[in-house]
Amino acid sequence: MKASRLLAPTLREAPRDTDAVSAKLMIRAGLIRKLAAGLYDWLPLGLRALKKAENIVRQEMDKLGAQEVWLPTIQPKELWEETGRWQVYGKELLRFKDRKDTEFCYAPTAEEVITDLVRRDVNSYRQLPLALYQFGSKFRDELRPRFGVMRAREFYMKDCYSFHATEADAEDFYKKAYEAYVKIFERCGFKFRAVEADSGAIGGSFSHEFMVLAETGEDEIISCEACGYGANREKHGTGTACPKCNKEPLMSSRGIEVGHTFKLGTKYSDAMKAMYLDASGAHKPFIMGCYGIGVSRVVAAAIEQGNDENGIIWTQALAPYQVVIIPTNYAEPKIKEWADKFYEEVQKLGVDAVLDDRDERAGVKFKDADLIGYPLRITLGEKGLAKGIAEVKPRSEKNFQEIPLDNVLTEVQKFFNS
Amino acid sequence: MKASRLLAPTLREAPRDTDAVSAKLMIRAGLIRKLAAGLYDWLPLGLRALKKAENIVRQEMDKLGAQEVWLPTIQPKELWEETGRWQVYGKELLRFKDRKDTEFCYAPTAEEVITDLVRRDVNSYRQLPLALYQFGSKFRDELRPRFGVMRAREFYMKDCYSFHATEADAEDFYKKAYEAYVKIFERCGFKFRAVEADSGAIGGSFSHEFMVLAETGEDEIISCEACGYGANREKHGTGTACPKCNKEPLMSSRGIEVGHTFKLGTKYSDAMKAMYLDASGAHKPFIMGCYGIGVSRVVAAAIEQGNDENGIIWTQALAPYQVVIIPTNYAEPKIKEWADKFYEEVQKLGVDAVLDDRDERAGVKFKDADLIGYPLRITLGEKGLAKGIAEVKPRSEKNFQEIPLDNVLTEVQKFFNS
Repeated sequence: MKASRLLAPTLREAPRDTDAVSAKLMIRAGLIRKLAAGLYDWLPLGLRALKKAENIVRQEMDKLGAQEVWLPTIQPKELWEETGRWQVYGKELLRFKDRKDTEFCYAPTAEEVITDLVRRDVNSYRQLPLALYQFGSKFRDELRPRFGVMRAREFYMKDCYSFHATEADAEDFYKKAYEAYVKIFERCGFKFRAVEADSGAIGGSFSHEFMVLAETGEDEIISCEACGYGANREKHGTGTACPKCNKEPLMSSRGIEVGHTFKLGTKYSDAMKAMYLDASGAHKPFIMGCYGIGVSRVVAAAIEQGNDENGIIWTQALAPYQVVIIPTNYAEPKIKEWADKFYEEVQKLGVDAVLDDRDERAGVKFKDADLIGYPLRITLGEKGLAKGIAEVKPRSEKNFQEIPLDNVLTEVQKFFNS
Repeated sequence: MKASRLLAPTLREAPRDTDAVSAKLMIRAGLIRKLAAGLYDWLPLGLRALKKAENIVRQEMDKLGAQEVWLPTIQPKELWEETGRWQVYGKELLRFKDRKDTEFCYAPTAEEVITDLVRRDVNSYRQLPLALYQFGSKFRDELRPRFGVMRAREFYMKDCYSFHATEADAEDFYKKAYEAYVKIFERCGFKFRAVEADSGAIGGSFSHEFMVLAETGEDEIISCEACGYGANREKHGTGTACPKCNKEPLMSSRGIEVGHTFKLGTKYSDAMKAMYLDASGAHKPFIMGCYGIGVSRVVAAAIEQGNDENGIIWTQALAPYQVVIIPTNYAEPKIKEWADKFYEEVQKLGVDAVLDDRDERAGVKFKDADLIGYPLRITLGEKGLAKGIAEVKPRSEKNFQEIPLDNVLTEVQKFFNS
């Protein structure tokens, strides 16, 4: 992509009402724009990071054996009444009437809709286990939307639901889903922790939260290095005593919730009479689990974890583009020639590249490159070319290296394979 | 994918209230399920077809130079008031209040939101032309939702908006977008026609509809083979006189609208004071175009165009899976061995395959294969294997061919490259 064509409107300052590091940087780097309270437009760079996160999640869900579906965002009241959640759910559930005065809500989650689908079309233990997932918009009418897309009202989520014939199978799948989540957040390049949590409005017997560690996290996590135990202090209410081992004191850190797994049991299948026939011909309620990832939140969490005073420091996996090529003066034929050549060759390596072909001073281009946070920067200038070198600088390092022009592509390959 | 794990609940009969060939077949083949009036769950097979259409559209939009963004489905009333459409738009616009009594609507289209984004962040003629597109849910509160996903209330759409400094540039881009649309529908494998249309609620100076030809189409198209002229009779009101040539009579056919391009001019930029600075420093309104494709409708249109009494006949480009491998008896070790081998080898060719490993009679598997409409079927049975052959049958042909086992993969390659 050529920077002259890319809609990436960078800003020196974030708007005053912006209240989190990631929100400030996402707006300043031109990743998002605020449409209204808790509603954000995702611009090309932001969406590319979102899609990279989505693809990682999709690959691991497919490996887990889950099948992708797509469910309406608009859900009928009747199903929510079957589970009693139409009454229980507070004002965060956006409710409205259609032109015929029929009541609906905008999905904050899809247990009712998926259980309804499965009770109609899955009848036998032989069809189990079954896991279905989707990506899509969700809406929670937060009283105080804040932290940019981290606590937005409309957000992008992966939700997965599993159906089982036995407790043992449900627990086995839960473990595998847990492992898939570990894999997902490892691939994102996160420092994170899985902690025990309570089940809140979703309900069920137990659950885990996946927390990206960041000083700015909303939640306090207490954990024990020795036994691997971790819990969300506020939500789980666990004090300082560690249930699994005697090592004290527990570590305390802060985290941002990006995923949540729930062992639901038969809460929804009982309420909605969602039954299958077991091997003996008896009707049994499905045993369920559900597994969410806030994909738009993953992007914000990546930025909370990776940034400095100059801007975003992406992990390689989530960076919208991996390399920026900066000709200090694109009007200079020799510089243009090398910049065009590297732009083409880098892309041939399968690396996403931006060519900053704008008619701007080199200093402006460097500032934008740091702010947007491309993992690798290749600078081509008159003096360097006279010496036969390009300046190559990883975003996470302070200084550039002078690399002979013939070796630049090898350096790029090395950087992204390391 | 193994059929025993695939959620593809086929039905002998469609529900009585189903009123279009594609809707009946989508439900019978287990592609979709109705959640409520005009609201559909997309099951794994349906979603795969939808994603294949989406990918074709995305590739051609990227080639056109448009950049992907993602905008909220929930839009604030204020922007719709700026253009006057809050008043003009009828009951098809789903309106509601959030918990703070602020008014919003669910996007049926995004001219206001995109124009608002661009007026805030694009200021100079040097940033033009600019084209932005997105995929996402749209909602139209149809009085009488019908024809399954074809006239659903919530549907999946690609909408693209372009911004230009000059009329000439806007028209040039319009032509390129038109050509991209032709490419998209050619790649989908459609028989289609682009026809002149009127601009309806979107407004603007002129527009074209892209109509998939099908006997069951809602719209009557009149066209002239000699000059290429085509028009939507009902919407455009064009009679029998052909404006561009004198050849009579015009052809009449029926079509399903899958895409619509609009030359908007300055309708939205004037109303919303969306201006850029031209080379002389003067403020000018953006000249705009917009370009929609009903992606979920594309899937239904493909089925309206491709079906017979036994089920769906997919084009190769949109088929959820391209090949089904049917072992007549998967419990038989020799049959299983060959079926597993072909399942693996076909996928290595980059061809999506389903292995029908279910414990069902061959007749049931054949019926499902025809109903779901896999373009190619490979059957492995005891008698055939004794002769050293597999039965290979394209969905669109009546009879199978006996292919020596060693040649099957070559046949598969030939079929998908032809």
